[in-house]
Amino acid sequence: MSTEGSDTKSGGKAEVHTTAPDLNMPFSSCVVERRPDPCTIVIVGASGDLTARKLMPALYDLFLKKGLPDPFLIVGCSRTEMTGDAFRARIKQGLPEGEDRGMSGWRDFAAALHYRSIQYDDPTSFHDLAESIRELEKGSGIQGNRLFYLAIPPLLYKSTARMLGAAGLSKEAEGTDGWARLVVEKPFGSDLDSAVDLDRSIHAYFSEHQVFRIDHYLAKETVQNILMFRFANAIFEPVWNRQYIEHIRITAAETLGVGHRAGYYEQAGVLRDMFQNHMMQLLALTAMEPPSVFEADRVRDEKVKVYRSLRPFPVDRWPENLVLGQYGAGTLDGRRVPAYRDEPGISSESLTPTFAMMKIYLDNWRWQGVPFYLISGKRMAHKRSEIAIQFKEVPHSMFRRTLGTGISANRLVLGIYPDEKITLTFQTKNPGAKVCLRSVTMDFHYSQSYSGPVMDAYEKVLLDCMLGDHMLFWRQDGVELCWAFLTPILRECETCGERRDRLHSYAAGTWGPDAVRRLIPDGGKSKDFKQTLENQVGAISATHSGVEVYYSY
Amino acid sequence: MSTEGSDTKSGGKAEVHTTAPDLNMPFSSCVVERRPDPCTIVIVGASGDLTARKLMPALYDLFLKKGLPDPFLIVGCSRTEMTGDAFRARIKQGLPEGEDRGMSGWRDFAAALHYRSIQYDDPTSFHDLAESIRELEKGSGIQGNRLFYLAIPPLLYKSTARMLGAAGLSKEAEGTDGWARLVVEKPFGSDLDSAVDLDRSIHAYFSEHQVFRIDHYLAKETVQNILMFRFANAIFEPVWNRQYIEHIRITAAETLGVGHRAGYYEQAGVLRDMFQNHMMQLLALTAMEPPSVFEADRVRDEKVKVYRSLRPFPVDRWPENLVLGQYGAGTLDGRRVPAYRDEPGISSESLTPTFAMMKIYLDNWRWQGVPFYLISGKRMAHKRSEIAIQFKEVPHSMFRRTLGTGISANRLVLGIYPDEKITLTFQTKNPGAKVCLRSVTMDFHYSQSYSGPVMDAYEKVLLDCMLGDHMLFWRQDGVELCWAFLTPILRECETCGERRDRLHSYAAGTWGPDAVRRLIPDGGKSKDFKQTLENQVGAISATHSGVEVYYSY
Repeated sequence: MSTEGSDTKSGGKAEVHTTAPDLNMPFSSCVVERRPDPCTIVIVGASGDLTARKLMPALYDLFLKKGLPDPFLIVGCSRTEMTGDAFRARIKQGLPEGEDRGMSGWRDFAAALHYRSIQYDDPTSFHDLAESIRELEKGSGIQGNRLFYLAIPPLLYKSTARMLGAAGLSKEAEGTDGWARLVVEKPFGSDLDSAVDLDRSIHAYFSEHQVFRIDHYLAKETVQNILMFRFANAIFEPVWNRQYIEHIRITAAETLGVGHRAGYYEQAGVLRDMFQNHMMQLLALTAMEPPSVFEADRVRDEKVKVYRSLRPFPVDRWPENLVLGQYGAGTLDGRRVPAYRDEPGISSESLTPTFAMMKIYLDNWRWQGVPFYLISGKRMAHKRSEIAIQFKEVPHSMFRRTLGTGISANRLVLGIYPDEKITLTFQTKNPGAKVCLRSVTMDFHYSQSYSGPVMDAYEKVLLDCMLGDHMLFWRQDGVELCWAFLTPILRECETCGERRDRLHSYAAGTWGPDAVRRLIPDGGKSKDFKQTLENQVGAISATHSGVEVYYSY
Repeated sequence: MSTEGSDTKSGGKAEVHTTAPDLNMPFSSCVVERRPDPCTIVIVGASGDLTARKLMPALYDLFLKKGLPDPFLIVGCSRTEMTGDAFRARIKQGLPEGEDRGMSGWRDFAAALHYRSIQYDDPTSFHDLAESIRELEKGSGIQGNRLFYLAIPPLLYKSTARMLGAAGLSKEAEGTDGWARLVVEKPFGSDLDSAVDLDRSIHAYFSEHQVFRIDHYLAKETVQNILMFRFANAIFEPVWNRQYIEHIRITAAETLGVGHRAGYYEQAGVLRDMFQNHMMQLLALTAMEPPSVFEADRVRDEKVKVYRSLRPFPVDRWPENLVLGQYGAGTLDGRRVPAYRDEPGISSESLTPTFAMMKIYLDNWRWQGVPFYLISGKRMAHKRSEIAIQFKEVPHSMFRRTLGTGISANRLVLGIYPDEKITLTFQTKNPGAKVCLRSVTMDFHYSQSYSGPVMDAYEKVLLDCMLGDHMLFWRQDGVELCWAFLTPILRECETCGERRDRLHSYAAGTWGPDAVRRLIPDGGKSKDFKQTLENQVGAISATHSGVEVYYSY
């Protein structure tokens, strides 16, 4: 390890990467549009898990794909005292195995890696950091462009943003194109008030155009594809409305339990952890009107319009539109897993929901009367994320006399995980002399006929931050509108007298509590629903079964 | 062979099949709705090729699938003098090899097979036939239900229909449910006058409800599926009109040459051979309005409405809307094949077209301004039948600034041969950080997840004749409307002074003459067309190339 990178502890002029990486790398003109301008990437919280597991592997991959600027600098900082070599060794260890990790690429990359320790509560420490950055940049060819990535606990966001600003690091150099950008990950507050408060602290020094609020879900290829699918094809949009759609179901099911995030999750619960961000983004992408042009603020304008159309939730009657659950012990992949209340760090009387199914409506022209079912939970039977568009039945069945029963309606599923695919279910003639229909599917697998390199979500968000493209990031008005919708629900759920009774237990490894039936018309008892159930069973993959069919309604 | 069937030359009481065939046969409730009532099937022209190659194998397969009535009788008749045993031996020889041809099934089937020789121009001969049928039926349990299948040259249709009628065989027994049905295959005349004349002869003794005019194309599963696909799914019909569809292309390309049908084909040419029947049926299925109920006459009503909407062809300017071609020598599947004019039985100066591409319009609310391209030819590069729905581009591309060029429009292809599949071409995001689109396809293969028995076209039409279901058969008004459309075109093409110059030669094994370009906007020279060409090249299978892309426009 002694050969890797130069020691920059001296504070002298730093080596920066100026040679191109391996030119034999597979390269598609679609992978990276343009290289960002030279910049310094400052990772605040560089000794943490997120940096080692996500950020640095993503930056290294970007480097190999020529997605990093030339030159660039990466400055890690955190409380831990550590030498530059120790930092680089730590980072190298975090990279996944593989031939791309070859020494030559790593050597060039490591040469641009630096480390500084800081005290989060000490303004002097941030002034020293600022000075240090200026020193590293001197003569490097970097014109003061700086990206500050907050890889720290959310509680530190407010003070750190202010510290950075007070140290002059939020200033965009006058008379040049130099920029300063702040990157934060969710959660953006824990309710409307705290979100507004956080925003105020950030905006004390950083303007909105400098702030990049990450929802890495948005950077998934299949999620990005939703808008392309809707608006680059002429045949789907005409049926993408209340006239043809029966309901829409957005599912994000995890098999993981609370893991090592007990402290955060006990306070957050599933509504803050998943609904306030990912679910609301998927909802907006599915429901938004076409923007006039595919530009960050025009797209975000349309998303915000969706949030403005959210029908206020009937908090006084919330159990009619929201089912909360908490996982009990159960079996997942043949392994016994403990109940939520038995997880390390979780109260044995915890009332934190780990599952929610919510029925919402959008009060606008396109979606009036169409229910959107949002479903997310931990310790579900399978990890699965998808958006299912359930179309209405044919307005008139000319086959009624011949077939007797109803005809299964069309369904379009945009699969995000595990199947990155689009599936259309439709009816065709069953082979044979008699008139019979059968439900069949057309599938498009996202990887179909594509073998080039792909970009993971963190690579994409890091690249977009450097390019200054806000497309995949939350704008503050969106954050606040979603909190404005969810906060009254959270308040009611967390304070109402029947709180305990209204939290339904479900066995880990299942599809959630049976109580979800009550959100479905007739509690799933009507003939129509039974028919739907039967149709679903045929349509869904053999690996999914049981209660899951509820959600297919 | 001596053990097969009973000798029925004696005219005595015939053995009829009364035991059920092998009960272990795969059987799906979708394969055969119900067994037809007991009947006698009379095949006129039983010594011919059609009987041996198509009809009898189909009847035998139906028998094995329990699609034949119980009891049934089959009486073959033609000019050839032949014993019952000789007839049965001949038929058995025509059956394809395979385990289904096991002796036990065949023995039961053969017991119901009989033969009588007749003279087509001798009324006495038909009276004898009638007497013979009555004898065979006596005590058999068959209540006089009779199907007369004319497997004879079209020139004999008129006289044979009259002979059968004069012998009393068209009479439907009074006071019983007994029926008498006449089955004829195309061609139904060679122009409007001859079609009306033929019909008058048939109707002299047979009512319209007794007449079954076969278009075996209609009995193909994928063709039958067109209506199911359109009308059992709620999401396609909303875009199935002039607002969303740019054009529709119906292709039926053959690799075969004229073969042994020289005499017929020289007179018919491609317009009579393919357009008057198959192409017009595919057009009607694609373009028709939804009938209120899926019943033969309601469906045929809607087809007839399509034919009534055909915009009269501008015969004085026909080369602007019709390209005729005749194949020259060429290479097909690596084998040299002769020019049409060098085929046996063809005049060396023949002006018969073997290829046509026709652009037509339907003057109705749904299709105003949408061109339908009908394309059919012999000795084309590949055997291929399909209906391609080319949708319009998106009304507005929000990606214009990002992508620069136009976005490929959606296309839906209903494949009939060789691919029994439905393919939808649409745009998705190309993986990678940059905004790029790519054309991808979703495919549904008709055989997908179906492994039961299927029914070939002849089995289906024979079964439907016995069941009295007219769904897949031409009604006389449809025949006449199509002839009324085509006859002026034929007259002009076959008499105009430039006839020779307007018949374009194309090499066998290609996709037809280059002149087809003139039916395409801008002769395929415009930027838009080039774009389309390029898009097509990417989309079509690697096995298809060259001129074919013209038709994809």
